Amino acid sequence: MKIRHTLLLAALGATLATPGMAQFAKPEDAIKYRKNALFVMSQHFGRLGAMAQGRVPFDAKVAAENAVVLETVSKLPWAAFGEGTDKGDTRAKPEIWKETAKFNDAADKMQAEVAKVVAAAKAGRADDLKAAFGGAAGACKNCHDNFRSQ
Amino acid sequence: MKIRHTLLLAALGATLATPGMAQFAKPEDAIKYRKNALFVMSQHFGRLGAMAQGRVPFDAKVAAENAVVLETVSKLPWAAFGEGTDKGDTRAKPEIWKETAKFNDAADKMQAEVAKVVAAAKAGRADDLKAAFGGAAGACKNCHDNFRSQ
Repeated sequence: MKIRHTLLLAALGATLATPGMAQFAKPEDAIKYRKNALFVMSQHFGRLGAMAQGRVPFDAKVAAENAVVLETVSKLPWAAFGEGTDKGDTRAKPEIWKETAKFNDAADKMQAEVAKVVAAAKAGRADDLKAAFGGAAGACKNCHDNFRSQ
Repeated sequence: MKIRHTLLLAALGATLATPGMAQFAKPEDAIKYRKNALFVMSQHFGRLGAMAQGRVPFDAKVAAENAVVLETVSKLPWAAFGEGTDKGDTRAKPEIWKETAKFNDAADKMQAEVAKVVAAAKAGRADDLKAAFGGAAGACKNCHDNFRSQ
């Protein structure tokens, strides 16, 4: 276990020469990272959505807690779509790397919409959260429709 | 795709009656969530480790960026070890639920050690990061050794 742990830390610290991949030791790590970050994000987004859509009562403390996590985690996946991460255990479509500007726009749009959700949830404003949630959910869906295989 | 997305959001918003699981729609989601959060955490921890161990040059901006993520993500996995999440696609040992106090202590210790890493990295203090990293890595290892199957 000790060896394993040391190897793990060494692997995590290794870098590739390709700028887009500089943060990840291997393309597989980048793919796993973006999927993992997106799943964690979806859980916190979903909890805010449950409140926005009235499926659970609005709770300002819970909303703020989820907003803090969402704010940080929603920024993470995008650095993990570097070159060489189009193949492997991923549903990412080739369009991500063929239509980079369009993909980046979609990612920016999603982050801008999520920022509105975060601001409303942090401030404990239920009505604003309700108003902002649909736009953010739509931005998620837009990117999934265009850039993720079913 | 629309139906799928709607179902996803509905599933994310659903809650179980068990307090420990209140945040997750299904035990599988909790298991996936904690594994995903721990992997994301390991990536950012590893980047700080590379600097702490001199494998890459210290960069105050990069250190601070990773610290912000680490600070948030290191708090996430623990809520996902609720009842009913001991079975499934997990290497979590039964000891987590049999020796809960010991597990919680280990998780608290890890978070306390990570807080030192975060503080050093946020402040751009390379020497403090170097000093704090070993303790945090040891706390990770301790929990893996005792509570995770190989």
